[in-house]
Amino acid sequence: MEFKSLTPYDEAIRLASGLKVNMRKSLIPVEKSVGHYCAEDIRSPISFPEADRSAVDGMAIRYEDSLSASRSNPVQIRLVGEVRIGDSPDFRINRGECALVYTGSPIPEGANAVIMKEDAAMEGSMVMIYRQVKKFQNISRMGEDLKKGDAIIRKGSRIMPWHLPAFIETGLDKIPVIDAEVGILSTGTEIVSGVVKNSSAPMLEYMISLMGLRHVFYGNVEDERSAIRNRIEGMKSDIVIVTGGSGPSSQDLVHDIIESDGRILFHGVRMKPGRTTGLGLIGDRPVFMISGLPVAALIAFENIIDSSIRSWFGMNRPKRSIKRGFLTRSIFNNENMKMFVRVRMFEENGKTMIEPMRTTGSGVINSVISADGYLIIDENSEGYPEGAEVEVVEIGDWL
Amino acid sequence: MEFKSLTPYDEAIRLASGLKVNMRKSLIPVEKSVGHYCAEDIRSPISFPEADRSAVDGMAIRYEDSLSASRSNPVQIRLVGEVRIGDSPDFRINRGECALVYTGSPIPEGANAVIMKEDAAMEGSMVMIYRQVKKFQNISRMGEDLKKGDAIIRKGSRIMPWHLPAFIETGLDKIPVIDAEVGILSTGTEIVSGVVKNSSAPMLEYMISLMGLRHVFYGNVEDERSAIRNRIEGMKSDIVIVTGGSGPSSQDLVHDIIESDGRILFHGVRMKPGRTTGLGLIGDRPVFMISGLPVAALIAFENIIDSSIRSWFGMNRPKRSIKRGFLTRSIFNNENMKMFVRVRMFEENGKTMIEPMRTTGSGVINSVISADGYLIIDENSEGYPEGAEVEVVEIGDWL
Repeated sequence: MEFKSLTPYDEAIRLASGLKVNMRKSLIPVEKSVGHYCAEDIRSPISFPEADRSAVDGMAIRYEDSLSASRSNPVQIRLVGEVRIGDSPDFRINRGECALVYTGSPIPEGANAVIMKEDAAMEGSMVMIYRQVKKFQNISRMGEDLKKGDAIIRKGSRIMPWHLPAFIETGLDKIPVIDAEVGILSTGTEIVSGVVKNSSAPMLEYMISLMGLRHVFYGNVEDERSAIRNRIEGMKSDIVIVTGGSGPSSQDLVHDIIESDGRILFHGVRMKPGRTTGLGLIGDRPVFMISGLPVAALIAFENIIDSSIRSWFGMNRPKRSIKRGFLTRSIFNNENMKMFVRVRMFEENGKTMIEPMRTTGSGVINSVISADGYLIIDENSEGYPEGAEVEVVEIGDWL
Repeated sequence: MEFKSLTPYDEAIRLASGLKVNMRKSLIPVEKSVGHYCAEDIRSPISFPEADRSAVDGMAIRYEDSLSASRSNPVQIRLVGEVRIGDSPDFRINRGECALVYTGSPIPEGANAVIMKEDAAMEGSMVMIYRQVKKFQNISRMGEDLKKGDAIIRKGSRIMPWHLPAFIETGLDKIPVIDAEVGILSTGTEIVSGVVKNSSAPMLEYMISLMGLRHVFYGNVEDERSAIRNRIEGMKSDIVIVTGGSGPSSQDLVHDIIESDGRILFHGVRMKPGRTTGLGLIGDRPVFMISGLPVAALIAFENIIDSSIRSWFGMNRPKRSIKRGFLTRSIFNNENMKMFVRVRMFEENGKTMIEPMRTTGSGVINSVISADGYLIIDENSEGYPEGAEVEVVEIGDWL
């Protein structure tokens, strides 16, 4: 498709972000929640610990009894009981008394400190204390970890494995997460016939699942207007991604369908790769148009689709680390495009060197499988000479 | 359990790494391969592209015809055909001829450059060329992206979504990945009775799946020697993790079972949290002993189990980013332990400040749900004073 004019990248992002797309909430079991984004602040329904608990194995005592204790001058007190984890002790610790406790045992009434077992010795029903402890020493106080109503994780944050214990310990069993179905439809007579493989759709499905959203692949469809239109109409997705444009005309067809059944927000973006990216609206469904070529599709997903969905649903952007280094060769921006240039990084003479990879040809798979990061060149920038110090976004082997 | 002596952390890692644990290989479909670690170098079975292809929409020509072309002085040549993506052109381009091609179309014989459509104009069966092109300009050469035998991804690397297009385009449909079943058994009469919740096992299951390995939870078992022993014997896992030790005696029981049926490599590590961590061998199965308390279990997993399994199977360690900053308060290492201290990071007056979080009490959930990073204090270090500049490992919201 010929674009009369290309929309600047920032303007495309602004147009996309301005859409109102309703956030869906799904309640999912805690054990399946990792990787999803919270649809609201998740607050602790209880104080945790729910009662004072021992933080060590030892003796629950009154700290006053330990004040004069030392190795050379131990204090002798009486063992009056044992409190196991989960017990509800029905006795009380008075001056001169103690109870055996374990890490996690509730502290019996009256006791206000725990002396570690290595600082005490049992002799029958008597206990020798060899060390002074402060008030509440070795006790996890009620609510010390989390007070009732404290946020365990905030709305829009990604749930990580270490949130599970906090959910489980505080008795949460379902978590409200951000949910949507993102449907992918691939156009292209050459992929329907099998002459060209559809290698973009499986990649996009993974990218969607990394956002904690549901993905459905609606198959390949030939470059034929009514066929594409019927398929889009049949999609139950909240958000639609149509890939295509590697063929001569499919992007035009999808554009025309959106224009007649809805409206185009932008089509053709001043970015490279990803120039043919577009967004329209049919009814209340956003429909993205992206290249079917895998590298262009990846860049369009990362920099337009991911970004748009995160704005609509209030999802945090994943932390990325920025590295500084020096270009091994010049890189020019002749066409005033926002460029997303894959780079390799390596250390040389104590300096981080940044080697831009080939950027022409959206199908240059090698540039994504072996990149360590990417350099963003602004559309107003003419690029950078060899040796220039630049900042790149690191690409990790995390998901 | 009382430890007669604690094994230094580095020694524990050395002992664990010295074990020979066989790597299993599983062939899995490409579409399910993301997140797994490659069991061997994955090499391209073909050169890609398989033939010269056009990198743009335009006209396939002989570059020699363009040498004198310019806007003011165009060259006229004859259109002799069209090559769609997937076609096998049966004609040849001679001097003075051209063919219409699209991004991805094979280049017909004789042609050695492509002129972009915006630099040409069709007039019936004639084409005007407005610009000079170089030999092979706008052509993706055969094998340019990947030569037959080139590694797409190396053994031990994690498969990311952007590897899928390379696998699919080069015709790979199954990928050999590193595989093992890691079984978790949780001991503790207090978790069997339900007095204490087992919040560690679900977290550990996720941590295992992030390594691309299979996890099976074998349930909770009371602190009873023969019960624990029977359960361990019944596990089909390649690697066993036994949690427990929050109760008074379960760690002793597991230790004794391993000692009588196999051998202990280490038990009790000079690390904090995670002091009660151990590793033994029953037959050819490694059996890890870790705390049932979630924070201690997490630190033991991250710093002992993950590390051991990666050594055994030759899995790359995920990239982590290191940040430098200044401590908001002193942190002491009185006990000569290797300390893994969760920290919060924030910016203040242009400086990155690092705030250590409470480190006592393995159950301090708050320290993991709100940490941005962790500080490692060596066992020989006495710690750091307030204001000291330290390096911390960033904890991201990636998986």
